[in-house]
Amino acid sequence: MAKTVKIGLVQMSCGPIPEENFTKAVNRVSDAADRGAQIVCLQELFRSTYFCQAEEVNRFDLAETIPGPSTEELGNLAAKKGVVIIASLFEQRTPGIYHNTAVVIDQRGKIVGKYRKMHIPDDPFYYEKFYFTPGDLGFLSHQTDFGNLGILVCWDQWFPEAARLTALAGAQILFYPTAIGWLPGEIEETNRAQHSAWEISQRAHAVANGVFVAAVNRVGKEENLQFWGQSFISDPFGRLIAKASDRDEEILIAECDLSKVEKTRREWCFLRDRRIDAYEDLTRRFRDRD
Amino acid sequence: MAKTVKIGLVQMSCGPIPEENFTKAVNRVSDAADRGAQIVCLQELFRSTYFCQAEEVNRFDLAETIPGPSTEELGNLAAKKGVVIIASLFEQRTPGIYHNTAVVIDQRGKIVGKYRKMHIPDDPFYYEKFYFTPGDLGFLSHQTDFGNLGILVCWDQWFPEAARLTALAGAQILFYPTAIGWLPGEIEETNRAQHSAWEISQRAHAVANGVFVAAVNRVGKEENLQFWGQSFISDPFGRLIAKASDRDEEILIAECDLSKVEKTRREWCFLRDRRIDAYEDLTRRFRDRD
Repeated sequence: MAKTVKIGLVQMSCGPIPEENFTKAVNRVSDAADRGAQIVCLQELFRSTYFCQAEEVNRFDLAETIPGPSTEELGNLAAKKGVVIIASLFEQRTPGIYHNTAVVIDQRGKIVGKYRKMHIPDDPFYYEKFYFTPGDLGFLSHQTDFGNLGILVCWDQWFPEAARLTALAGAQILFYPTAIGWLPGEIEETNRAQHSAWEISQRAHAVANGVFVAAVNRVGKEENLQFWGQSFISDPFGRLIAKASDRDEEILIAECDLSKVEKTRREWCFLRDRRIDAYEDLTRRFRDRD
Repeated sequence: MAKTVKIGLVQMSCGPIPEENFTKAVNRVSDAADRGAQIVCLQELFRSTYFCQAEEVNRFDLAETIPGPSTEELGNLAAKKGVVIIASLFEQRTPGIYHNTAVVIDQRGKIVGKYRKMHIPDDPFYYEKFYFTPGDLGFLSHQTDFGNLGILVCWDQWFPEAARLTALAGAQILFYPTAIGWLPGEIEETNRAQHSAWEISQRAHAVANGVFVAAVNRVGKEENLQFWGQSFISDPFGRLIAKASDRDEEILIAECDLSKVEKTRREWCFLRDRRIDAYEDLTRRFRDRD
Protein backbone atom coordinates (compact mmCIF):
# COMPACT_ATOMS: atom_id res chain seq x y z
CA MET A 1 0.00 0.00 0.00
CA ALA A 2 1.18 3.50 -0.84
CA LYS A 3 2.78 5.40 2.03
CA THR A 4 2.15 8.84 0.62
CA VAL A 5 -1.00 9.79 -1.22
CA LYS A 6 -2.00 12.98 -2.94
CA ILE A 7 -5.60 13.98 -2.39
CA GLY A 8 -7.68 16.57 -4.19
CA LEU A 9 -10.80 18.32 -2.96
CA VAL A 10 -13.11 20.01 -5.45
CA GLN A 11 -14.71 23.10 -3.90
CA MET A 12 -17.17 24.58 -6.35
CA SER A 13 -20.38 26.54 -6.79
CA CYS A 14 -23.49 24.97 -8.30
CA GLY A 15 -26.19 26.28 -10.58
CA PRO A 16 -29.75 25.16 -11.33
CA ILE A 17 -28.88 22.70 -14.13
CA PRO A 18 -27.56 19.37 -12.79
CA GLU A 19 -25.89 18.39 -16.06
CA GLU A 20 -23.80 21.56 -15.97
CA ASN A 21 -22.73 20.95 -12.38
CA PHE A 22 -21.89 17.39 -13.25
CA THR A 23 -19.78 18.44 -16.22
CA LYS A 24 -17.99 21.01 -14.10
CA ALA A 25 -17.25 18.35 -11.50
CA VAL A 26 -15.95 15.93 -14.13
CA ASN A 27 -13.62 18.62 -15.47
CA ARG A 28 -12.36 19.47 -11.99
CA VAL A 29 -11.70 15.83 -11.18
CA SER A 30 -9.70 15.64 -14.41
CA ASP A 31 -7.77 18.75 -13.48
CA ALA A 32 -7.05 17.40 -10.01
CA ALA A 33 -5.82 14.13 -11.49
CA ASP A 34 -3.62 16.05 -13.94
CA ARG A 35 -2.14 17.82 -10.94
CA GLY A 36 -1.25 14.47 -9.43
CA ALA A 37 -4.19 13.77 -7.14
CA GLN A 38 -4.75 10.04 -6.60
CA ILE A 39 -7.97 10.43 -4.61
CA VAL A 40 -10.43 13.16 -5.52
CA CYS A 41 -13.38 14.00 -3.29
CA LEU A 42 -16.36 16.01 -4.47
CA GLN A 43 -18.53 18.13 -2.20
CA GLU A 44 -21.87 16.97 -0.79
CA LEU A 45 -24.58 16.61 -3.45
CA PHE A 46 -22.33 18.26 -6.04
CA ARG A 47 -24.71 17.43 -8.89
CA SER A 48 -27.27 20.01 -7.84
CA THR A 49 -27.80 23.05 -5.73
CA TYR A 50 -28.34 22.23 -2.07
CA PHE A 51 -32.02 21.44 -2.57
CA CYS A 52 -32.86 20.81 1.10
CA GLN A 53 -33.51 24.50 1.74
CA ALA A 54 -37.20 23.86 1.09
CA GLU A 55 -39.43 20.80 1.38
CA GLU A 56 -40.76 20.26 -2.12
CA VAL A 57 -41.91 16.88 -3.32
CA ASN A 58 -40.71 17.37 -6.89
CA ARG A 59 -37.12 17.77 -5.68
CA PHE A 60 -37.05 14.02 -5.21
CA ASP A 61 -36.73 13.98 -9.01
CA LEU A 62 -33.05 14.75 -8.46
CA ALA A 63 -32.48 11.31 -6.93
CA GLU A 64 -30.91 8.46 -8.89
CA THR A 65 -30.05 4.86 -8.35
CA ILE A 66 -26.62 3.58 -7.32
CA PRO A 67 -25.23 2.17 -9.54
CA GLY A 68 -26.79 4.60 -11.98
CA PRO A 69 -25.97 7.26 -14.54
CA SER A 70 -23.65 9.27 -12.27
CA THR A 71 -21.63 6.33 -10.98
CA GLU A 72 -21.42 5.01 -14.54
CA GLU A 73 -19.93 8.20 -15.86
CA LEU A 74 -17.69 8.74 -12.82
CA GLY A 75 -16.50 5.14 -13.10
CA ASN A 76 -15.37 5.78 -16.65
CA LEU A 77 -13.66 8.97 -15.54
CA ALA A 78 -11.91 7.24 -12.63
CA ALA A 79 -10.59 4.52 -14.92
CA LYS A 80 -9.54 7.01 -17.59
CA LYS A 81 -7.65 9.22 -15.16
CA GLY A 82 -6.49 6.46 -12.82
CA VAL A 83 -7.92 8.13 -9.72
CA VAL A 84 -10.14 7.13 -6.85
CA ILE A 85 -13.27 9.30 -6.80
CA ILE A 86 -15.45 9.96 -3.77
CA ALA A 87 -18.83 11.20 -4.91
CA SER A 88 -21.78 12.33 -2.82
CA LEU A 89 -25.07 11.48 -4.50
CA PHE A 90 -28.80 11.67 -3.83
CA GLU A 91 -29.67 7.99 -3.87
CA GLN A 92 -33.08 6.56 -4.71
CA ARG A 93 -33.06 3.11 -3.18
CA THR A 94 -36.69 2.48 -3.97
CA PRO A 95 -39.63 4.84 -4.34
CA GLY A 96 -40.08 6.32 -0.86
CA ILE A 97 -36.57 5.53 0.39
CA TYR A 98 -33.93 8.07 -0.48
CA HIS A 99 -30.48 8.44 1.05
CA ASN A 100 -27.69 10.97 1.15
CA THR A 101 -25.04 8.56 -0.05
CA ALA A 102 -21.37 8.73 -0.89
CA VAL A 103 -19.64 6.21 -3.12
CA VAL A 104 -15.98 5.32 -3.41
CA ILE A 105 -15.00 4.44 -6.98
CA ASP A 106 -11.53 2.99 -7.42
CA GLN A 107 -9.02 3.80 -10.14
CA ARG A 108 -10.31 0.88 -12.21
CA GLY A 109 -13.76 2.44 -12.23
CA LYS A 110 -15.36 0.01 -9.79
CA ILE A 111 -17.60 1.01 -6.88
CA VAL A 112 -15.68 -0.31 -3.87
CA GLY A 113 -17.57 1.40 -1.09
CA LYS A 114 -20.84 3.03 -0.26
CA TYR A 115 -21.76 5.05 2.81
CA ARG A 116 -25.22 6.32 3.63
CA LYS A 117 -25.26 9.45 5.79
CA MET A 118 -26.08 8.35 9.30
CA HIS A 119 -26.79 11.64 11.08
CA ILE A 120 -29.50 13.65 9.36
CA PRO A 121 -29.99 17.31 10.30
CA ASP A 122 -33.19 19.29 10.40
CA ASP A 123 -32.49 22.98 10.87
CA PRO A 124 -33.93 26.05 9.19
CA PHE A 125 -32.91 25.71 5.52
CA TYR A 126 -31.36 22.30 6.11
CA TYR A 127 -34.57 20.26 5.95
CA GLU A 128 -32.80 16.99 5.37
CA LYS A 129 -35.07 14.82 7.47
CA PHE A 130 -37.71 15.39 4.80
CA TYR A 131 -35.50 14.02 2.05
CA PHE A 132 -33.13 11.48 3.53
CA THR A 133 -33.82 8.21 5.27
CA PRO A 134 -31.10 7.75 7.90
CA GLY A 135 -28.28 5.50 6.71
CA ASP A 136 -28.32 1.82 7.61
CA LEU A 137 -24.85 0.72 6.54
CA GLY A 138 -23.06 1.90 9.68
CA PHE A 139 -19.61 3.47 9.87
CA LEU A 140 -17.16 1.99 7.42
CA SER A 141 -13.62 2.04 6.15
CA HIS A 142 -13.03 1.34 2.47
CA GLN A 143 -9.77 -0.27 1.38
CA THR A 144 -8.21 1.16 -1.75
CA ASP A 145 -4.75 1.01 -3.26
CA PHE A 146 -4.22 4.55 -2.00
CA GLY A 147 -5.19 3.95 1.62
CA ASN A 148 -8.13 3.05 3.83
CA LEU A 149 -10.77 5.71 3.39
CA GLY A 150 -13.56 6.64 5.76
CA ILE A 151 -16.43 8.63 4.32
CA LEU A 152 -18.75 10.69 6.48
CA VAL A 153 -21.10 13.37 5.27
CA CYS A 154 -21.63 16.90 6.57
CA TRP A 155 -23.77 16.72 9.76
CA ASP A 156 -21.81 13.60 10.73
CA GLN A 157 -18.90 15.96 11.37
CA TRP A 158 -20.45 17.15 14.64
CA PHE A 159 -20.49 13.64 16.12
CA PRO A 160 -17.26 12.34 17.63
CA GLU A 161 -18.83 8.88 17.69
CA ALA A 162 -18.91 8.79 13.88
CA ALA A 163 -15.25 9.73 13.53
CA ARG A 164 -14.23 7.26 16.22
CA LEU A 165 -16.14 4.31 14.77
CA THR A 166 -14.82 5.03 11.29
CA ALA A 167 -11.25 5.24 12.56
CA LEU A 168 -11.73 2.03 14.56
CA ALA A 169 -12.84 0.38 11.33
CA GLY A 170 -9.37 1.14 9.98
CA ALA A 171 -9.73 4.43 8.12
CA GLN A 172 -6.57 6.50 7.72
CA ILE A 173 -8.28 9.49 6.12
CA LEU A 174 -11.77 10.75 6.97
CA PHE A 175 -13.47 12.55 4.08
CA TYR A 176 -16.36 14.88 4.81
CA PRO A 177 -18.28 16.00 1.69
CA THR A 178 -20.16 18.99 3.04
CA ALA A 179 -22.71 21.70 2.29
CA ILE A 180 -22.64 24.24 5.07
CA GLY A 181 -23.10 27.97 4.99
CA TRP A 182 -24.21 31.07 6.73
CA LEU A 183 -27.80 32.11 7.18
CA PRO A 184 -28.89 35.57 6.08
CA GLY A 185 -28.84 38.35 8.63
CA GLU A 186 -26.44 36.88 11.17
CA ILE A 187 -23.82 39.13 12.63
CA GLU A 188 -20.23 38.62 11.55
CA GLU A 189 -19.13 37.36 14.98
CA THR A 190 -21.72 34.57 14.90
CA ASN A 191 -20.66 33.60 11.41
CA ARG A 192 -17.04 33.42 12.48
CA ALA A 193 -17.91 31.38 15.57
CA GLN A 194 -19.96 28.93 13.51
CA HIS A 195 -17.16 28.40 11.04
CA SER A 196 -14.61 28.06 13.82
CA ALA A 197 -16.74 25.49 15.66
CA TRP A 198 -17.03 23.53 12.42
CA GLU A 199 -13.33 23.57 11.71
CA ILE A 200 -12.06 22.79 15.22
CA SER A 201 -14.58 19.97 15.66
CA GLN A 202 -13.16 18.19 12.65
CA ARG A 203 -9.55 18.94 13.48
CA ALA A 204 -10.32 17.48 16.90
CA HIS A 205 -11.49 14.26 15.21
CA ALA A 206 -8.07 14.12 13.54
CA VAL A 207 -6.37 14.52 16.93
CA ALA A 208 -8.57 12.11 18.87
CA ASN A 209 -8.18 9.38 16.29
CA GLY A 210 -4.78 10.03 14.76
CA VAL A 211 -6.14 10.26 11.22
CA PHE A 212 -6.11 12.74 8.37
CA VAL A 213 -9.33 14.70 7.90
CA ALA A 214 -10.38 16.18 4.57
CA ALA A 215 -13.49 18.37 4.48
CA VAL A 216 -14.80 19.64 1.16
CA ASN A 217 -17.49 22.29 1.20
CA ARG A 218 -19.27 24.22 -1.54
CA VAL A 219 -19.11 27.98 -2.18
CA GLY A 220 -21.56 30.52 -3.51
CA LYS A 221 -25.00 31.75 -2.59
CA GLU A 222 -28.01 29.50 -3.24
CA GLU A 223 -31.49 30.47 -2.06
CA ASN A 224 -30.93 31.48 1.59
CA LEU A 225 -27.50 30.08 2.27
CA GLN A 226 -24.07 31.56 1.64
CA PHE A 227 -21.87 28.46 1.58
CA TRP A 228 -18.63 29.18 3.38
CA GLY A 229 -16.16 27.04 1.43
CA GLN A 230 -12.92 26.82 3.41
CA SER A 231 -12.40 23.19 2.54
CA PHE A 232 -9.38 21.92 4.39
CA ILE A 233 -7.08 19.03 5.06
CA SER A 234 -5.78 18.36 8.56
CA ASP A 235 -2.93 16.05 9.50
CA PRO A 236 -3.38 13.49 12.32
CA PHE A 237 -2.21 16.07 14.82
CA GLY A 238 -4.89 18.59 13.93
CA ARG A 239 -2.55 20.81 11.88
CA LEU A 240 -4.08 22.41 8.79
CA ILE A 241 -1.95 21.41 5.83
CA ALA A 242 -4.19 22.96 3.16
CA LYS A 243 -7.15 25.31 3.24
CA ALA A 244 -9.31 26.91 0.55
CA SER A 245 -10.90 30.35 0.51
CA ASP A 246 -14.44 31.18 1.63
CA ARG A 247 -15.51 32.60 -1.75
CA ASP A 248 -13.72 31.01 -4.65
CA GLU A 249 -13.97 27.75 -6.49
CA GLU A 250 -10.78 25.86 -5.87
CA ILE A 251 -9.10 22.50 -6.28
CA LEU A 252 -7.28 21.88 -3.04
CA ILE A 253 -4.42 19.42 -3.31
CA ALA A 254 -2.26 18.07 -0.53
CA GLU A 255 0.11 15.21 0.00
CA CYS A 256 -0.72 12.98 2.97
CA ASP A 257 2.06 10.87 4.40
CA LEU A 258 0.05 7.96 5.76
CA SER A 259 2.94 6.82 7.95
CA LYS A 260 2.05 9.82 10.09
CA VAL A 261 -1.04 7.95 11.27
CA GLU A 262 1.07 5.38 13.05
CA LYS A 263 3.72 7.89 14.09
CA THR A 264 1.11 10.13 15.72
CA ARG A 265 -0.63 7.24 17.46
CA ARG A 266 2.67 6.01 18.89
CA GLU A 267 3.44 9.41 20.35
CA TRP A 268 0.02 10.03 21.84
CA CYS A 269 -1.50 6.63 22.51
CA PHE A 270 -5.15 7.51 22.89
CA LEU A 271 -6.49 4.32 21.35
CA ARG A 272 -4.52 2.28 23.90
CA ASP A 273 -6.23 3.98 26.82
CA ARG A 274 -9.90 4.05 25.83
CA ARG A 275 -12.02 2.81 28.74
CA ILE A 276 -14.17 0.43 26.72
CA ASP A 277 -15.40 -1.13 29.96
CA ALA A 278 -17.07 2.18 30.83
CA TYR A 279 -18.50 3.38 27.52
CA GLU A 280 -21.68 1.35 27.42
CA ASP A 281 -23.93 4.34 28.12
CA LEU A 282 -22.85 5.91 24.83
CA THR A 283 -25.68 3.87 23.33
CA ARG A 284 -28.19 5.68 25.54
CA ARG A 285 -30.03 8.85 24.57
CA PHE A 286 -29.51 10.42 28.01
CA ARG A 287 -28.42 9.17 31.38
CA ASP A 288 -31.58 10.12 33.25
CA ARG A 289 -31.41 10.53 36.99
CA ASP A 290 -33.40 8.01 38.95
CA MET B 1 -30.72 26.91 40.45
CA ALA B 2 -28.59 29.89 39.49
CA LYS B 3 -28.70 30.86 35.82
CA THR B 4 -25.37 32.64 35.82
CA VAL B 5 -22.35 31.43 37.72
CA LYS B 6 -18.93 32.92 38.18
CA ILE B 7 -16.11 30.41 38.03
CA GLY B 8 -12.50 30.81 39.02
CA LEU B 9 -9.52 28.77 37.86
CA VAL B 10 -6.30 28.83 39.88
CA GLN B 11 -3.30 28.48 37.57
CA MET B 12 -0.16 28.30 39.68
CA SER B 13 3.37 26.98 39.93
CA CYS B 14 4.35 24.43 42.55
CA GLY B 15 7.47 23.90 44.63
CA PRO B 16 8.89 20.92 46.49
CA ILE B 17 7.06 21.52 49.80
CA PRO B 18 3.43 20.35 49.68
CA GLU B 19 2.35 22.49 52.64
CA GLU B 20 3.52 25.62 50.86
CA ASN B 21 1.66 24.69 47.67
CA PHE B 22 -1.41 23.93 49.71
CA THR B 23 -1.24 27.28 51.49
CA LYS B 24 -0.78 29.06 48.19
CA ALA B 25 -3.82 27.27 46.79
CA VAL B 26 -5.91 28.15 49.85
CA ASN B 27 -4.97 31.81 49.46
CA ARG B 28 -5.79 31.81 45.77
CA VAL B 29 -9.17 30.19 46.39
CA SER B 30 -9.85 32.94 48.92
CA ASP B 31 -8.80 35.58 46.42
CA ALA B 32 -11.00 34.07 43.72
CA ALA B 33 -13.95 34.02 46.13
CA ASP B 34 -13.29 37.65 47.05
CA ARG B 35 -13.45 38.45 43.34
CA GLY B 36 -16.88 36.86 43.18
CA ALA B 37 -16.13 33.33 42.06
CA GLN B 38 -18.78 30.84 43.20
CA ILE B 39 -16.96 27.74 41.95
CA VAL B 40 -13.18 27.55 42.16
CA CYS B 41 -11.24 24.80 40.45
CA LEU B 42 -7.63 23.96 41.31
CA GLN B 43 -5.18 22.41 38.87
CA GLU B 44 -4.36 18.70 38.80
CA LEU B 45 -2.45 17.51 41.90
CA PHE B 46 -1.98 21.11 43.03
CA ARG B 47 -0.60 20.04 46.41
CA SER B 48 2.72 18.89 44.96
CA THR B 49 4.93 19.12 41.97
CA TYR B 50 3.87 16.82 39.15
CA PHE B 51 5.57 13.80 40.69
CA CYS B 52 4.81 11.36 37.85
CA GLN B 53 7.92 12.41 35.93
CA ALA B 54 9.77 9.49 37.52
CA GLU B 55 8.71 6.15 38.98
CA GLU B 56 9.81 6.30 42.60
CA VAL B 57 8.16 4.24 45.27
CA ASN B 58 8.56 6.84 47.98
CA ARG B 59 6.46 9.33 46.01
CA PHE B 60 3.42 7.35 47.09
CA ASP B 61 3.99 9.11 50.42
CA LEU B 62 2.26 12.10 48.85
CA ALA B 63 -1.03 10.24 48.78
CA GLU B 64 -3.75 10.83 51.35
CA THR B 65 -7.19 9.51 52.16
CA ILE B 66 -10.43 11.10 51.04
CA PRO B 67 -11.89 12.37 53.31
CA GLY B 68 -8.56 13.37 54.80
CA PRO B 69 -6.48 16.35 55.82
CA SER B 70 -6.81 18.19 52.50
CA THR B 71 -10.55 17.78 52.14
CA GLU B 72 -10.95 18.73 55.80
CA GLU B 73 -9.12 21.99 55.36
CA LEU B 74 -10.68 22.75 51.97
CA GLY B 75 -14.10 22.01 53.44
CA ASN B 76 -13.54 24.64 56.10
CA LEU B 77 -12.35 27.07 53.45
CA ALA B 78 -15.34 26.39 51.21
CA ALA B 79 -17.75 27.01 54.07
CA LYS B 80 -15.92 30.12 55.22
CA LYS B 81 -15.87 31.68 51.76
CA GLY B 82 -19.18 30.26 50.54
CA VAL B 83 -17.68 28.72 47.41
CA VAL B 84 -17.73 25.36 45.74
CA ILE B 85 -14.18 23.99 45.46
CA ILE B 86 -13.01 21.41 42.95
CA ALA B 87 -9.76 19.88 44.16
CA SER B 88 -7.56 17.31 42.46
CA LEU B 89 -5.87 15.04 45.01
CA PHE B 90 -3.64 11.99 45.11
CA GLU B 91 -5.93 9.51 46.84
CA GLN B 92 -4.81 6.53 48.87
CA ARG B 93 -7.82 4.24 48.90
CA THR B 94 -5.95 1.44 50.61
CA PRO B 95 -2.29 0.46 50.60
CA GLY B 96 -1.62 -0.55 46.99
CA ILE B 97 -4.59 1.25 45.47
CA TYR B 98 -4.02 4.91 44.67
CA HIS B 99 -6.14 7.12 42.43
CA ASN B 100 -5.89 10.47 40.72
CA THR B 101 -9.09 11.82 42.22
CA ALA B 102 -10.98 15.08 42.14
CA VAL B 103 -13.51 16.07 44.77
CA VAL B 104 -16.32 18.56 44.64
CA ILE B 105 -16.84 20.34 47.95
CA ASP B 106 -19.95 22.47 48.22
CA GLN B 107 -20.26 25.92 49.78
CA ARG B 108 -21.30 24.34 53.07
CA GLY B 109 -18.01 22.45 53.18
CA LYS B 110 -19.45 19.04 52.35
CA ILE B 111 -17.95 16.62 49.81
CA VAL B 112 -20.75 16.23 47.27
CA GLY B 113 -18.89 14.47 44.51
CA LYS B 114 -15.82 12.43 43.78
CA TYR B 115 -14.36 11.46 40.41
CA ARG B 116 -11.47 9.09 39.90
CA LYS B 117 -9.48 9.73 36.72
CA MET B 118 -10.59 7.13 34.21
CA HIS B 119 -7.99 7.48 31.44
CA ILE B 120 -4.45 7.06 32.72
CA PRO B 121 -1.53 8.12 30.50
CA ASP B 122 1.89 6.58 30.27
CA ASP B 123 4.20 8.73 28.21
CA PRO B 124 7.79 9.81 28.76
CA PHE B 125 7.70 11.93 31.96
CA TYR B 126 4.02 11.19 32.50
CA TYR B 127 4.40 7.79 34.12
CA GLU B 128 0.93 7.78 35.60
CA LYS B 129 0.18 4.11 35.09
CA PHE B 130 2.77 3.45 37.79
CA TYR B 131 0.95 5.58 40.34
CA PHE B 132 -2.73 5.57 39.53
CA THR B 133 -5.19 2.73 39.47
CA PRO B 134 -7.73 3.53 36.75
CA GLY B 135 -10.91 5.07 38.12
CA ASP B 136 -13.92 2.89 38.84
CA LEU B 137 -16.62 5.45 39.51
CA GLY B 138 -17.45 6.13 35.87
CA PHE B 139 -18.35 9.48 34.33
CA LEU B 140 -20.46 11.63 36.60
CA SER B 141 -22.28 14.89 36.97
CA HIS B 142 -22.39 16.49 40.41
CA GLN B 143 -25.37 18.65 41.35
CA THR B 144 -24.56 21.83 43.22
CA ASP B 145 -26.44 25.05 43.89
CA PHE B 146 -24.31 26.69 41.22
CA GLY B 147 -24.92 24.17 38.45
CA ASN B 148 -24.32 20.57 37.47
CA LEU B 149 -20.60 20.01 37.34
CA GLY B 150 -18.70 17.36 35.45
CA ILE B 151 -15.13 16.70 36.51
CA LEU B 152 -12.60 15.06 34.23
CA VAL B 153 -8.86 15.07 34.72
CA CYS B 154 -6.09 15.87 32.24
CA TRP B 155 -5.61 12.83 29.93
CA ASP B 156 -9.41 12.42 29.92
CA GLN B 157 -9.49 15.57 27.79
CA TRP B 158 -8.33 13.64 24.72
CA PHE B 159 -11.31 11.27 24.83
CA PRO B 160 -14.57 12.51 23.33
CA GLU B 161 -16.30 9.57 25.02
CA ALA B 162 -15.52 11.01 28.46
CA ALA B 163 -16.92 14.43 27.63
CA ARG B 164 -20.01 12.92 26.02
CA LEU B 165 -20.83 10.58 28.90
CA THR B 166 -20.34 13.36 31.44
CA ALA B 167 -22.60 15.69 29.47
CA LEU B 168 -25.19 12.94 29.10
CA ALA B 169 -25.12 12.58 32.88
CA GLY B 170 -26.34 16.17 33.04
CA ALA B 171 -23.20 18.26 33.43
CA GLN B 172 -23.43 21.88 32.28
CA ILE B 173 -19.75 22.68 32.84
CA LEU B 174 -16.86 20.27 32.31
CA PHE B 175 -13.85 21.02 34.50
CA TYR B 176 -10.46 19.64 33.52
CA PRO B 177 -7.79 19.98 36.24
CA THR B 178 -4.63 19.46 34.22
CA ALA B 179 -0.85 19.13 34.32
CA ILE B 180 0.48 19.31 30.79
CA GLY B 181 3.64 20.82 29.45
CA TRP B 182 6.34 20.78 26.88
CA LEU B 183 9.21 18.34 26.81
CA PRO B 184 12.76 19.63 26.61
CA GLY B 185 14.36 20.02 23.20
CA GLU B 186 11.24 20.11 21.04
CA ILE B 187 11.08 22.64 18.26
CA GLU B 188 8.75 25.59 18.69
CA GLU B 189 6.40 24.43 15.92
CA THR B 190 5.84 21.10 17.66
CA ASN B 191 5.16 22.85 20.95
CA ARG B 192 2.64 25.13 19.30
CA ALA B 193 0.94 22.20 17.56
CA GLN B 194 0.70 20.25 20.82
CA HIS B 195 -0.87 23.14 22.65
CA SER B 196 -3.24 23.81 19.77
CA ALA B 197 -4.33 20.17 19.63
CA TRP B 198 -4.99 20.30 23.38
CA GLU B 199 -7.04 23.46 23.22
CA ILE B 200 -9.13 22.63 20.15
CA SER B 201 -9.88 19.13 21.43
CA GLN B 202 -11.47 20.56 24.54
CA ARG B 203 -13.25 23.38 22.73
CA ALA B 204 -14.63 20.67 20.44
CA HIS B 205 -16.05 18.88 23.50
CA ALA B 206 -17.87 22.12 24.33
CA VAL B 207 -19.29 22.25 20.80
CA ALA B 208 -20.24 18.58 20.51
CA ASN B 209 -22.05 18.59 23.84
CA GLY B 210 -23.27 22.15 24.22
CA VAL B 211 -21.53 22.64 27.56
CA PHE B 212 -19.03 25.05 29.08
CA VAL B 213 -15.48 23.72 29.37
CA ALA B 214 -13.00 24.98 31.95
CA ALA B 215 -9.42 23.70 31.79
CA VAL B 216 -6.97 24.66 34.51
CA ASN B 217 -3.31 23.87 33.96
CA ARG B 218 -0.17 24.57 35.98
CA VAL B 219 2.77 26.81 35.00
CA GLY B 220 6.47 26.70 35.65
CA LYS B 221 9.30 24.27 35.05
CA GLU B 222 9.51 21.12 37.17
CA GLU B 223 12.11 18.43 36.46
CA ASN B 224 11.78 17.89 32.68
CA LEU B 225 8.50 19.56 31.94
CA GLN B 226 7.70 23.19 31.17
CA PHE B 227 4.00 23.39 32.02
CA TRP B 228 2.24 25.50 29.45
CA GLY B 229 -0.49 27.15 31.54
CA GLN B 230 -3.04 28.74 29.20
CA SER B 231 -5.96 27.70 31.34
CA PHE B 232 -9.15 28.66 29.58
CA ILE B 233 -12.91 28.72 29.67
CA SER B 234 -14.94 27.97 26.55
CA ASP B 235 -18.61 28.67 26.06
CA PRO B 236 -20.93 25.92 24.68
CA PHE B 237 -20.17 27.05 21.16
CA GLY B 238 -16.43 26.60 21.50
CA ARG B 239 -15.69 30.32 21.92
CA LEU B 240 -12.89 31.18 24.35
CA ILE B 241 -14.32 33.53 26.94
CA ALA B 242 -11.21 33.66 29.15
CA LYS B 243 -7.62 32.50 28.75
CA ALA B 244 -4.53 32.74 30.95
CA SER B 245 -0.92 33.20 29.92
CA ASP B 246 1.61 30.43 29.32
CA ARG B 247 4.05 31.67 31.98
CA ASP B 248 2.35 33.46 34.84
CA GLU B 249 0.38 32.38 37.84
CA GLU B 250 -3.13 33.66 37.39
CA ILE B 251 -6.63 33.49 38.77
CA LEU B 252 -8.87 33.27 35.75
CA ILE B 253 -12.44 34.39 36.39
CA ALA B 254 -15.38 34.24 34.01
CA GLU B 255 -19.10 34.44 34.20
CA CYS B 256 -20.96 31.53 32.66
CA ASP B 257 -24.56 32.04 31.66
CA LEU B 258 -25.87 28.51 32.05
CA SER B 259 -28.95 29.28 29.97
CA LYS B 260 -26.54 29.19 27.02
CA VAL B 261 -26.38 25.42 27.38
CA GLU B 262 -30.00 25.06 26.39
CA LYS B 263 -29.89 27.92 23.90
CA THR B 264 -26.93 26.33 22.08
CA ARG B 265 -28.48 22.89 22.08
CA ARG B 266 -31.71 24.24 20.61
CA GLU B 267 -29.86 25.91 17.78
CA TRP B 268 -27.64 22.98 16.90
CA CYS B 269 -29.50 19.85 18.00
CA PHE B 270 -26.69 17.33 18.09
CA LEU B 271 -28.03 15.35 21.02
CA ARG B 272 -31.31 14.84 19.16
CA ASP B 273 -29.58 13.17 16.24
CA ARG B 274 -27.11 10.78 17.86
CA ARG B 275 -27.40 7.33 16.22
CA ILE B 276 -27.52 5.34 19.43
CA ASP B 277 -28.66 2.32 17.45
CA ALA B 278 -25.28 2.30 15.68
CA TYR B 279 -22.81 3.13 18.45
CA GLU B 280 -22.43 -0.28 20.02
CA ASP B 281 -18.92 -0.83 18.66
CA LEU B 282 -17.66 2.11 20.72
CA THR B 283 -17.23 -0.45 23.47
CA ARG B 284 -14.78 -2.39 21.30
CA ARG B 285 -11.02 -1.86 21.25
CA PHE B 286 -10.84 -2.09 17.46
CA ARG B 287 -13.17 -3.24 14.75
CA ASP B 288 -10.92 -5.95 13.34
CA ARG B 289 -11.49 -7.12 9.81
CA ASP B 290 -12.70 -10.67 9.49
